[in-house]
Amino acid sequence: MKTRERIAMASLSLFNHFGEPNVTTLQIADELNISPGNLYYHFKNKTEIINDLFGRFERQMLNLISAPDAEVSIDDYWIVLHLVFECIAEYQFLYKDLVNILQRYERIAPRFRKILNRKLAVTHSVLQRLKERHVIDAADSELAALAHNVVLTLTWWPSYDVVTAKLPQEMDLNRGIAQTISQVAPYLREAERAEVLALSREYLATAPGGSPEREV
Amino acid sequence: MKTRERIAMASLSLFNHFGEPNVTTLQIADELNISPGNLYYHFKNKTEIINDLFGRFERQMLNLISAPDAEVSIDDYWIVLHLVFECIAEYQFLYKDLVNILQRYERIAPRFRKILNRKLAVTHSVLQRLKERHVIDAADSELAALAHNVVLTLTWWPSYDVVTAKLPQEMDLNRGIAQTISQVAPYLREAERAEVLALSREYLATAPGGSPEREV
Repeated sequence: MKTRERIAMASLSLFNHFGEPNVTTLQIADELNISPGNLYYHFKNKTEIINDLFGRFERQMLNLISAPDAEVSIDDYWIVLHLVFECIAEYQFLYKDLVNILQRYERIAPRFRKILNRKLAVTHSVLQRLKERHVIDAADSELAALAHNVVLTLTWWPSYDVVTAKLPQEMDLNRGIAQTISQVAPYLREAERAEVLALSREYLATAPGGSPEREV
Repeated sequence: MKTRERIAMASLSLFNHFGEPNVTTLQIADELNISPGNLYYHFKNKTEIINDLFGRFERQMLNLISAPDAEVSIDDYWIVLHLVFECIAEYQFLYKDLVNILQRYERIAPRFRKILNRKLAVTHSVLQRLKERHVIDAADSELAALAHNVVLTLTWWPSYDVVTAKLPQEMDLNRGIAQTISQVAPYLREAERAEVLALSREYLATAPGGSPEREV
């Protein structure tokens, strides 16, 4: 791996683990056993590293949430949800500290807002399509609120997970997915609701924290 | 008003408006037209101001979410929800920057976690009571997930509002309440669901941003 790539990957891992505000470029150089001068040759400062990582995140996420083909099956939506959550987990340092990071790195703020609005629009159009197919039963105003709830849960799950956990930990991806699925479940037709709740139980069973009973 | 009280109130207002990390004790003294020395006589540093404000927030919130009387009507729950949101709006600087603030002010982190867990427990017991009265129709695992979704929406609405808004603004209290109501609505019995959706429309109609159609 080239040095520039190694710096980006080590930064991502340190940011995710310790939180972006708590990691300095000196620590990144130290982690890689390279001189600060060598690091500065590739990235002038931490802002450039953040911009680089954000660019990778942005490409990956926009690719996932490009408007889905009208012909896809409902199961495909859950796969996309899973992949979106994996992308969030991969770049969890952004999500755990979102408002703060968007305030301090002004260049990424409008781009993140664009991603969020795109997520909202895609979620809404998927829900509308499910309504047209009579899989979802909800008024239009309920669909609009549901789209917001899905995106809010997706986006702030990592923060919720951090704040409610007694000990710092890796983000609990599976519980986040189950939580998001539970937003849509009550609006689904009986058969699909049962299917989706079974899927949700599978996610919870494999979550590090264990069974749903533990959760409240 | 005593100077100590004036300092606390001015700090709260500046924190809410500009974000806590962006406000210094010098700016607070300046806002009040008092000398930094006078401010330091009352609060040794910003941490002491934060601790004081957090204490007020904590008393107010714990008071609101003390386990509700079993005999209350369903309408009373919406009133409590409204009051909880007002308290969140009053101390929105905490919520807009939550993970960051809890990291930097270690003494308040466990207390905030306690409030969050208390909210979760109270929400869950209210939902269970509504299920016992057959107002809510949901499996136990759905109720658990719903309690998490309600608390997540409550807690991160201010961040969602900040990140999705094009211009910085006062937190949109009414849309936050409508959003939280929409979590519970699909599980309600037909009559209560219609009632609650009407309530939600009222909140949205008085929201600064206007009608529900605007939202997605």
